[in-house]
Amino acid sequence: MKSLNYNKVTPLIFKEFEVLLGKEFLSSDKEQLEKYGQDETEDLLYFPELVLKPQTVEQVAAIAKICNAHAIPLTTRGAGTGLSGGALPIHGGVILSMEKFNKILSIDERNLQATVEPGVINYIFQEEVKKLGLFYPPDPASWGSCSLGGNIAHSSGGPKAVKYGTTRDYVLNLQVVLASGEIIWTGANTLKYSTGYNLTHLMVGSEGTLGIVTKIVFKLIPLPKNDLLMLVPFKSAEHACTAVAGVFRAGITPSAMEFMERDAIDWSMKFSGELSFEIKPEWRALLLIEVDGNDMEVLMKDCEVISGVMQENECDEILFADSAEQKNALWKIRRKVGEAVKSNSVYKEEDTVVPRAELPVLLKGVKRIGAKYGFRSVCYGHAGDGNLHVNIIKGDLSDEVWENDLPKGITEIFELCKSLGGTISGEHGIGLVQKNYLPIVFSPTHLELMKNIKKVFDPNYILNPGKIFD
Amino acid sequence: MKSLNYNKVTPLIFKEFEVLLGKEFLSSDKEQLEKYGQDETEDLLYFPELVLKPQTVEQVAAIAKICNAHAIPLTTRGAGTGLSGGALPIHGGVILSMEKFNKILSIDERNLQATVEPGVINYIFQEEVKKLGLFYPPDPASWGSCSLGGNIAHSSGGPKAVKYGTTRDYVLNLQVVLASGEIIWTGANTLKYSTGYNLTHLMVGSEGTLGIVTKIVFKLIPLPKNDLLMLVPFKSAEHACTAVAGVFRAGITPSAMEFMERDAIDWSMKFSGELSFEIKPEWRALLLIEVDGNDMEVLMKDCEVISGVMQENECDEILFADSAEQKNALWKIRRKVGEAVKSNSVYKEEDTVVPRAELPVLLKGVKRIGAKYGFRSVCYGHAGDGNLHVNIIKGDLSDEVWENDLPKGITEIFELCKSLGGTISGEHGIGLVQKNYLPIVFSPTHLELMKNIKKVFDPNYILNPGKIFD
Repeated sequence: MKSLNYNKVTPLIFKEFEVLLGKEFLSSDKEQLEKYGQDETEDLLYFPELVLKPQTVEQVAAIAKICNAHAIPLTTRGAGTGLSGGALPIHGGVILSMEKFNKILSIDERNLQATVEPGVINYIFQEEVKKLGLFYPPDPASWGSCSLGGNIAHSSGGPKAVKYGTTRDYVLNLQVVLASGEIIWTGANTLKYSTGYNLTHLMVGSEGTLGIVTKIVFKLIPLPKNDLLMLVPFKSAEHACTAVAGVFRAGITPSAMEFMERDAIDWSMKFSGELSFEIKPEWRALLLIEVDGNDMEVLMKDCEVISGVMQENECDEILFADSAEQKNALWKIRRKVGEAVKSNSVYKEEDTVVPRAELPVLLKGVKRIGAKYGFRSVCYGHAGDGNLHVNIIKGDLSDEVWENDLPKGITEIFELCKSLGGTISGEHGIGLVQKNYLPIVFSPTHLELMKNIKKVFDPNYILNPGKIFD
Repeated sequence: MKSLNYNKVTPLIFKEFEVLLGKEFLSSDKEQLEKYGQDETEDLLYFPELVLKPQTVEQVAAIAKICNAHAIPLTTRGAGTGLSGGALPIHGGVILSMEKFNKILSIDERNLQATVEPGVINYIFQEEVKKLGLFYPPDPASWGSCSLGGNIAHSSGGPKAVKYGTTRDYVLNLQVVLASGEIIWTGANTLKYSTGYNLTHLMVGSEGTLGIVTKIVFKLIPLPKNDLLMLVPFKSAEHACTAVAGVFRAGITPSAMEFMERDAIDWSMKFSGELSFEIKPEWRALLLIEVDGNDMEVLMKDCEVISGVMQENECDEILFADSAEQKNALWKIRRKVGEAVKSNSVYKEEDTVVPRAELPVLLKGVKRIGAKYGFRSVCYGHAGDGNLHVNIIKGDLSDEVWENDLPKGITEIFELCKSLGGTISGEHGIGLVQKNYLPIVFSPTHLELMKNIKKVFDPNYILNPGKIFD
């Protein structure tokens, strides 16, 4: 492993990049470096030395070769919406922005597949395939701005993952530029695959540390024709969490099963200006439940079954969204929770995940641990997946408590996750801000295996160095 | 890498194994060695030096340690139903039979998960979860005898994979004994996972070359309450293949979409003695199509849509199975094709897979290449997945042609698969008999990555040596 430093991009190398890309596709002015030195993770900022915006796979390969030869840190960046610091250039070097890789190359209606570049925005892709009656389900809250390449870096989920799976479940094949500058396709464009080690699924979730994705072949499915959305209020958050597992046990797999604590809703409604319905004072938590499919009668029956489960768990009166506008309003509230919390206070977001029936235990534990260390938390997330986003609010806490006690509290929360069969990230990844907590879930042997896999792909440690582990 | 040889199990090491396991759980008598020296792949036989039948993970760990210390080849074996020679001890050494790991440890109805040992037979597991209204979909043709651990080795599919995915899609977490004898869990018991490299999905499909699976946590889903089965005859195999893609494009995802050539049906009906319906002389191919779900009316509507697509593709009269007996009879014919072909002639089975709409091109190509080299083939398989099993029949071919020309023909078939976006194995794995063909689909760089991953997990090359690659 060659050593890394902050002054690797010499004038000569700069010139090399400039000749390769053209003046307008690289930048080293301070404003740009600052812009590309942050993502959506807390208030972190790390300056790169240079921002590169390649347009072709050959350019990406040439960039990798140069960086590999000179041991220049190379951090690939999608749209910068990550929540674990995955795109931050913490060792300086080069930011490789994939924003010019923004084309949907083909939508193959015969095979229900699409080939896209990684810089395509999730929502734009969804809308394009929808026009053809097709469906690409993964829908992170940031779908309006996050890129598909970023989704692959973390195997992003979203509300629909509960029925349809995460990004991983839709990736058939990847074109990847390796650290050496060589280009491979990881697999085949097939639904089944048993041909050597599965490098496709190893690449998904590897947070830009094993290679640079330059093309993606996605599986698509037929678009369900209908959906129904219901909002279920509870006087206790634990009742809401308990109701979740009951729905699946009753044989229904909803297309969304979202949980929000009272504070999350209040903050989000205030933040988004979305006040089209009344939140009664006694409500402590809400479930937002969607079912989808082709047959409306079946969906109605599903909703009846779900209502029954909810009532067994002491819900208040269930609200059915009766228009597209109401549905949008409810989804807007849910999707804006993260931003609302961010705008409200300094905070730290944890992406806990457990088997879904353990959710009430996790939630109770989070509150107990918070009380012990004196911090307040706002919880929401994908309850059907057991994926609870825990937003720990700084509020009036002193910097000292925030710096010293918070990591202890987070450690206890993660230990609880592990003891419940869960882990420390469901969809946000480890990146920079969670890497110190990895030893909670992995033994030294396990971590060593991962580090050695990293070495196989990136012997000079240039690809997104300092992420997942040191 | 230490060198391997056939006389590694010295009397001292034998004694060590005997003390560890007890006399009745190891065997070196010739009959046993012969039994464990073969699987369902052609007529291949390789003698191990010793067969071990551990009962606990600690015993497996101790065995791995001993083998690792003395560079003894260690080939893990499930039920020996593999079709690519994955369980053959081609370098001698030890067969680690997992047959005593045959317990379903828990079925967690709250979380829709089950923890099982790898020696459990697929069908037994399916039946157990069914009693609780739950469903484990992967159902290889050999489900009555294949083990779940073997299914993980190849990410086995089966008819239901077209709607429900392969084994890979149901594995949440694995307890694995590494070559060093250390024990890890690869992930967490969660539906979402973004916590470092995905070792779970790397292990699935790695054919016993990276570790020894000792416990499996599977995801389960609610059991669909109803299904309908239809048999659709065609006067041309290509029309049948073309009809397949049309069904998905019409927005229907059947729970099975199987293709059989005329010969496959004839041979299977003769072999199984299943003659409950008439196969008209003009039929050249059949599709067996199943839809499943909770609502019978929806299924009827789906069948109407499917019938429409079939008729557009010039099918003959469609037969609906109208009783459980008829369904079983039809499925029996489909499931017995492999055995029937095997009993009929020396043959070689290829597990080709392409994007599903390319199936007609693949089938035509297989016949064209067969004509060129003078071999006959019987084709059947999971058409909805684009997964065509090509059985090349020796029949009257001379041994010389069989030895010399067949590999050329297979090479051309695999090159065709690749050119169509497919690959050389969908669900049977590479094992021993396909490894020479891997360079058709992978570049030297790609193969090198795989070999280096192998080294990370198994530096002394003891785990199933000589499989996937040399």
